[in-house]
Amino acid sequence: MSALADRVIQCCREIARMSEEPGRTTRTFLSPPMREVHKLLAAWMRNLGMRVRVDAAGNLRGLHGNSTAPRLIIGSHLDTVPEAGAFDGVLGVVLGLALIEANPTISIEVIGFSEEEGVRFVKPFLGSRAFVGDTEWRTSEIDSALRDFGLDPAELPEVRFVKETVGYLEFHIEQGPVLENLNLPLGIVEAIAGQSRFVLYFEGRANHAGTTPMSLRTDALVAASRWICEVDRYARARPGLVATVGSVQVSPNATNVIPGRVRASLDVRHADDNARRGAVRDLLVTDHELVLDQNAVKMDRALTAELAAAAPNARRMTSGAGHDAMIVAPHIPSAMLFLRSPGGISHHPDEFVLSEDVDAALEAGAAFLKRMESKYV
Amino acid sequence: MSALADRVIQCCREIARMSEEPGRTTRTFLSPPMREVHKLLAAWMRNLGMRVRVDAAGNLRGLHGNSTAPRLIIGSHLDTVPEAGAFDGVLGVVLGLALIEANPTISIEVIGFSEEEGVRFVKPFLGSRAFVGDTEWRTSEIDSALRDFGLDPAELPEVRFVKETVGYLEFHIEQGPVLENLNLPLGIVEAIAGQSRFVLYFEGRANHAGTTPMSLRTDALVAASRWICEVDRYARARPGLVATVGSVQVSPNATNVIPGRVRASLDVRHADDNARRGAVRDLLVTDHELVLDQNAVKMDRALTAELAAAAPNARRMTSGAGHDAMIVAPHIPSAMLFLRSPGGISHHPDEFVLSEDVDAALEAGAAFLKRMESKYV
Repeated sequence: MSALADRVIQCCREIARMSEEPGRTTRTFLSPPMREVHKLLAAWMRNLGMRVRVDAAGNLRGLHGNSTAPRLIIGSHLDTVPEAGAFDGVLGVVLGLALIEANPTISIEVIGFSEEEGVRFVKPFLGSRAFVGDTEWRTSEIDSALRDFGLDPAELPEVRFVKETVGYLEFHIEQGPVLENLNLPLGIVEAIAGQSRFVLYFEGRANHAGTTPMSLRTDALVAASRWICEVDRYARARPGLVATVGSVQVSPNATNVIPGRVRASLDVRHADDNARRGAVRDLLVTDHELVLDQNAVKMDRALTAELAAAAPNARRMTSGAGHDAMIVAPHIPSAMLFLRSPGGISHHPDEFVLSEDVDAALEAGAAFLKRMESKYV
Repeated sequence: MSALADRVIQCCREIARMSEEPGRTTRTFLSPPMREVHKLLAAWMRNLGMRVRVDAAGNLRGLHGNSTAPRLIIGSHLDTVPEAGAFDGVLGVVLGLALIEANPTISIEVIGFSEEEGVRFVKPFLGSRAFVGDTEWRTSEIDSALRDFGLDPAELPEVRFVKETVGYLEFHIEQGPVLENLNLPLGIVEAIAGQSRFVLYFEGRANHAGTTPMSLRTDALVAASRWICEVDRYARARPGLVATVGSVQVSPNATNVIPGRVRASLDVRHADDNARRGAVRDLLVTDHELVLDQNAVKMDRALTAELAAAAPNARRMTSGAGHDAMIVAPHIPSAMLFLRSPGGISHHPDEFVLSEDVDAALEAGAAFLKRMESKYV
């Protein structure tokens, strides 16, 4: 393990202790421990000679190099889910700073986005949305929170990326088991899967479990169970599709009463929007409500090719989870590098990353910067 | 409709208004409205020349005829579930009194059991258990409740039936759809089904619904759903068996997380204990806990034959629900007559009974008493 990879991991662990809850890592948008994180990372940035500011959306931003030269963005988020791990988001920011240590000749802005998880105000991606000029998420409540943090919502338009921006690179842990299963340290994200969420309702007749013969029953849970088996079978038969029934509520949910009603969630994802829509059509067999409908977002083909050249052993893959890159990609050519998640564990204190994989990511990042320099400097 | 059937139904409706909750019928063991019920029924009993008492278990008892002569018991319960209907239990007591109107020559004790549903102290059948000499349900809490109602727990041994007792007859609404489906007013219960209840645990691995490919999942809900379908298929293929998964809890039960654990209830009933035990063996496919294991209880063959002769068009059937007759039958020859439940509805304010069916029950009861008189008087 290199000393730099060691510093990266130690820095993430130190930041994980900056939390709203003692003994756990919980750090939501504009919470008091976010100031400590800014202080720690800003000190490192200044030490590297970067110009540092916290923008009006609460994003920490450090600029390396000339402010009028073509600029690469390296970013990820600094907020966490409740009882989080130490690497989701933070690792991407810390890796950005670690790459500045080599004093690259290309201008680089490292950004720690203020809000990706959507814990505090339910809406996710507030930091990256402001960065691409979208402030439709504003409410008087969020404006108050910004002011309480010492920020001025009137300055939100200045959060937007500058015209010199040529690309966006995000490092992130995979948060899934694919790379571990392939025994590979790195993955290159070609697309972030589109996502549909529904609630389905199965209706039966609630009746006494002892006095109602099988032939006179309409059991909502049996109907829902048949469908859950079919959802699983359907998705297993279609490569790239994931479909999940994660939540079920049975009414009245009593041992001795035949279920009269079942409410079940459905989550369907695919990198190809047509494949996802086809699955949704086939799987919506009963009354339902739409909860979320999000198209797939492709990373930039040319920038992804550069990243692939810099990390030739990385696996090209789809991200099943959303990331800031999904918000940035429609506005700035974007690429994304995944680091293996041991055990596929994330959003959990046991989340971790192998130091050899951090080494591999640093090596790929440095090679990527060299390629960018040959193009833009 | 006869005037007597009309009086029976009106009396049940009047008793339904004696409740712990305004606008609903909720009348638990030894609750204040139970006194009103005792007062109303005791007045009717005295009017019929019966000797009336409330025994130490809170059962209302009225004796018609000679106290040393062979005695038939007609009973059911006076307590209710929360938000109950007007006929579950009460109807059996009121029908007993209606039959005394004709001044039968056989001695009859009509009993309104104090506790069958088990709502107040979770344990059911306290009244009928005391009546057969079982007071193992006593706790200091229940003793206090008895004293608060003006009863003396020391007198509980005197609740037991007298040696002159020759039989027990219970009228009860079916609480199920079988008679309605057959278009028949009356059913004769041959046995009360044995019942097994279990909780089963299905284990999987909770993981991100977006980042975990189908091939790398162990979804506890899919496993549970396959089993729920199998439980339904299994029971439908075996006459007389009912098997119900009424309650399911999924962990963590989030739309975007693959279910890691499912807790499911299983309720299995059959009039034949071997058939029930075989089903339980076949359906317990995973970790489980036993919640309840109750053998079937057969009604008395000879007394049931007398009841069948008195109600020749009644359908012989199994009761899938427990009744006081289940407690009494091992001690006293017992028989049970079901009245059709329109819509199969019970434990609900919409529970009702057709006046023509009450007429049919009164006619069957009177014929049954004639047969008893020819045997015992």
